[in-house]
Amino acid sequence: MEDLTGGGYDPAMQAVLLSIGDELVLGQTVDTNTAWIAEQLARRGLTCARHETIADDLSLIADAFRRAARDADLVIVTGGLGPTADDLTRDALADAMGVELNLHAPSLDRIEAFFARRGKTMAERNRVQAMCPDGATMLDNDAGTAPGIRSTLKGATVFVAPGVPREMRSMFEAYIAPFLAEHAGQADTLLTTKVNTFGLGESDVAEQLGDLMQRDRNPTVGTTVSQGLCSIRVRSRFGDAGRALRELEDTVEQVMARVGPVAFSRDETTLQESTVSALREAGLTVATAESCTGGLVGQMLTDVPGSSVVFTGGWVTYSNDMKSGQLGVDPTLIEQYGAVSPEVAAAMASGCRSRSGADLAVSLTGIAGPEGGTDDKPVGTVWIGLASVNGTQTFLARLAGPRSVVRDRAAKCALQLLRLTAMGEDPAAISWLTAETAAR
Amino acid sequence: MEDLTGGGYDPAMQAVLLSIGDELVLGQTVDTNTAWIAEQLARRGLTCARHETIADDLSLIADAFRRAARDADLVIVTGGLGPTADDLTRDALADAMGVELNLHAPSLDRIEAFFARRGKTMAERNRVQAMCPDGATMLDNDAGTAPGIRSTLKGATVFVAPGVPREMRSMFEAYIAPFLAEHAGQADTLLTTKVNTFGLGESDVAEQLGDLMQRDRNPTVGTTVSQGLCSIRVRSRFGDAGRALRELEDTVEQVMARVGPVAFSRDETTLQESTVSALREAGLTVATAESCTGGLVGQMLTDVPGSSVVFTGGWVTYSNDMKSGQLGVDPTLIEQYGAVSPEVAAAMASGCRSRSGADLAVSLTGIAGPEGGTDDKPVGTVWIGLASVNGTQTFLARLAGPRSVVRDRAAKCALQLLRLTAMGEDPAAISWLTAETAAR
Repeated sequence: MEDLTGGGYDPAMQAVLLSIGDELVLGQTVDTNTAWIAEQLARRGLTCARHETIADDLSLIADAFRRAARDADLVIVTGGLGPTADDLTRDALADAMGVELNLHAPSLDRIEAFFARRGKTMAERNRVQAMCPDGATMLDNDAGTAPGIRSTLKGATVFVAPGVPREMRSMFEAYIAPFLAEHAGQADTLLTTKVNTFGLGESDVAEQLGDLMQRDRNPTVGTTVSQGLCSIRVRSRFGDAGRALRELEDTVEQVMARVGPVAFSRDETTLQESTVSALREAGLTVATAESCTGGLVGQMLTDVPGSSVVFTGGWVTYSNDMKSGQLGVDPTLIEQYGAVSPEVAAAMASGCRSRSGADLAVSLTGIAGPEGGTDDKPVGTVWIGLASVNGTQTFLARLAGPRSVVRDRAAKCALQLLRLTAMGEDPAAISWLTAETAAR
Repeated sequence: MEDLTGGGYDPAMQAVLLSIGDELVLGQTVDTNTAWIAEQLARRGLTCARHETIADDLSLIADAFRRAARDADLVIVTGGLGPTADDLTRDALADAMGVELNLHAPSLDRIEAFFARRGKTMAERNRVQAMCPDGATMLDNDAGTAPGIRSTLKGATVFVAPGVPREMRSMFEAYIAPFLAEHAGQADTLLTTKVNTFGLGESDVAEQLGDLMQRDRNPTVGTTVSQGLCSIRVRSRFGDAGRALRELEDTVEQVMARVGPVAFSRDETTLQESTVSALREAGLTVATAESCTGGLVGQMLTDVPGSSVVFTGGWVTYSNDMKSGQLGVDPTLIEQYGAVSPEVAAAMASGCRSRSGADLAVSLTGIAGPEGGTDDKPVGTVWIGLASVNGTQTFLARLAGPRSVVRDRAAKCALQLLRLTAMGEDPAAISWLTAETAAR
């Protein structure tokens, strides 16, 4: 088991997390809020005794409040603050506290202003979102209508936040994080960071990390995979804060040296952001020519604010007519080799580069599935073309998984390819790509 | 509609689910077992009062067992059956039952055989997995080493299964599903479905549903919001299965009539799929011209397998040069009105339609943020153009939230606009869009 204890709270301080909602209890929605909050608490050295998920039922929720306040010093609750009749968290908290709900005028003003900014009038039913249990404090919601609530119940501090992840997170940062900082004590310093990679499988990464992953090492090094990205988590725990930071940075340096250029960032910086940064630093612009990914690469690049400096635009040439008519791909190439071929990928990339005027052009043509695979070109076969001032190269990606996964991984291969190219690194670092010989 | 018929349980029969493990409480792993089990129970007409997730601590787990057995007739527990020192579920169950653990020889034989089949010798520490609380029954695990446990605690039936999802599911099918089938009585049938909408806020939907949302109604009607989509959940519970279905369908019909054409599907069908279906049924093809969404609309359309029948392709005209060079937008329009204007949106849509040869063309140009907003055109201002055989129309969307949300909602507005157009419905049903007068 991984030891995440103690960043300086009273070791007896216990948290209980509650999630409210029929959709969660019925399994229609997977609760991601709780894991996120638990991780936030763990980062700050605070552990949870338990989580509970409760149906939209007044007495069940009120019971859960009482139980949690009895067992914990800190209770964090998400969900059930909406404007409808099945949003019962406010009522249940008031019930558990044994108090009435009263209208909180400033919150009502904020909700009305929220609608007014969108040119709308607040519906009468949103009024209920401004109801506050006597003795509790309303917490402003900058991202939606439902204010949160802070109160005290049987000596425990209770925070209630909306279930919409974005609103919950912004409220956590605004109110709960400062509360935690204020109540932090004097114990060990726990510092964590992660190094994000794309282009190697988890076992390849583990192989390269070798002895850095030994369980009894401090800082500890571990890997997790999500959405095709392999992240390497480093945690450093020392009594001395300066040492914790030095040891963390030293381990990170060793990690980066071992995994090489597929490591694209630290902490929360995305592959998209790293790719845009690398292009910007190299002073290169890029255009896209997408078939099987249908616009996904363009969407990913433009996820990044300010990407217009490097991204010119692109084409989604889903039909063969679009490939020929818009990118000038010779129809006989498509006839002879098929739309999913290195020949067509190369022609798409070079047509895209010349018509856009961009420095680099990347093209993708493949079989995302579930239909359309053949023995020769099974589902997951994607050809990626890269045109630059040095000519056109093509790469074969053989990807596994359902349609959405094939598309996502193909688009990420294209981004990493652009990033490595901009940095002058060898694209062969991406283990899923096989480079073909240069353009025809 | 998904048939979630039930099974007929005593309406008083309540289930509580427990998940055991530090990695869950710490948020390092998102618990998918619980949602899966909850859904299995819901399909059989059995509801959960709550879920709990508990850390690897003997007394916390034993407490959770006692609390669950007090509140529920059926307790299903996953996790904490591994061979290491932090696997404490067996001990905690014995503790709550007030009995000893004893070695169960047939289970030990099975574990040894499991290793032998893989050419290995069982490690001594795996022996603990064969320990059984007195009076309990061991459940064979066909997919791993840890046997499950069935027992009785304060009158409640308790099932314990491993936390590895594959092992848990196979044990559920082998032992828990037959138990549920055997105990299905003469009681109620529970049917659930949901109606998905895009284009109205949750309070607007609630307003339109009115008395259908009364808490004491049967079928019950509730709303949840996720990713800008508002879903209306309908649950029908009656003793007679035929009546449960009739009442469900009757309520769904009323729901659909009240919310109108913004309701795009039932159950798991996505907005993307409904849009592609509507276009296919109308025999229409579509092309896209995207600026602020950078390819997101194309990506969403091509999420749907077989979308090539309706989607021709498109342009990502992120730079003004691409707008003029590739779509023929008159540069003086951009100069005079700005790239984010109804004039440019209309020119992009009509250029896209004529160059692609598609029946419909949709264009998006807007300010996704966080930079680039002005008093006149704040962040969240998106102009959408729609070109068809009838000419070109433009719509103004005023959207709120960070960059990713503005882009997602703008793309969904474009899809809903295409869907409503293909169905001959009025796009004004989307409350976030204001229609401008027809094209210039």
